Amino acid sequence: MRSSYPFLRDAIELADENITQQGGGPFGAVIVKDGTVIARAVNTVTTGNDPTAHAEVNAIRAACRALDTFDLSGCTIYCSCEPCPMCLAAVYWARIDKIFYAGTRVDAQDAGFDDSFIYEELERPLSERKIPIIQQLGDEGAKPLQRWKSTENKIHY
Amino acid sequence: MRSSYPFLRDAIELADENITQQGGGPFGAVIVKDGTVIARAVNTVTTGNDPTAHAEVNAIRAACRALDTFDLSGCTIYCSCEPCPMCLAAVYWARIDKIFYAGTRVDAQDAGFDDSFIYEELERPLSERKIPIIQQLGDEGAKPLQRWKSTENKIHY
Repeated sequence: MRSSYPFLRDAIELADENITQQGGGPFGAVIVKDGTVIARAVNTVTTGNDPTAHAEVNAIRAACRALDTFDLSGCTIYCSCEPCPMCLAAVYWARIDKIFYAGTRVDAQDAGFDDSFIYEELERPLSERKIPIIQQLGDEGAKPLQRWKSTENKIHY
Repeated sequence: MRSSYPFLRDAIELADENITQQGGGPFGAVIVKDGTVIARAVNTVTTGNDPTAHAEVNAIRAACRALDTFDLSGCTIYCSCEPCPMCLAAVYWARIDKIFYAGTRVDAQDAGFDDSFIYEELERPLSERKIPIIQQLGDEGAKPLQRWKSTENKIHY
């Protein structure tokens, strides 16, 4: 058996339990560092009234609390299903090293979730997106970023 | 002056204040419904040890708490900078109607942030991604999603 299987099966079991427990969507995630489980989480979108509370995001937040850091370098995340674009980008921001997943975005779509749709949206030009996205005040908006660039003693992430 | 400008300027001002306050990255977001501000938020990644705590995600979470829902249909989000893929997908999951932003992903990149890099990564095939992403146990992973599909009395989102 591959060494990744127990953690991935744990994530799948969490997903399944979350249906039974009515905790939210059927998704689970486990974050591991040096062979030790740092965080286990399920989707709590509907029970927590938080559309960002996917299993992976919840696991990242829990792992950061556990390790007292915003940088999860050296960690691996095991996901019951392929991360949606929000969760995938969150993995990048968290500096996680590696991702294992079991179910696919197609499995998720078949169960009524928008993962595939959102992946497709992100690849469309801004002008063709379903949710209108409009830029205004570009010069004013660039200023805080320029100020940040020249600010000393800032904490980068 | 366009009606969107005051809310967008508020988001930019939040971004600028967050540099002064050392609250986190130079980003702000404001969520509005029917002309009323529901939530205002800044990036708190480094001060809250949460890599998902971008201004838009914080604003979405706050707006959901304020309205006691996970569905922000009817809301508009004003962002000091173009949302990163995590935040953009979060906007989709939250069912927000419309996005205004000021600074661009290029401005963010110039200030040292990975927004552009992550957008490029999401468009790459899984095999070419910088963070390895590996599928295993596909049949087992599909099962909770199949079970969800046939479950009655579930709360969809």
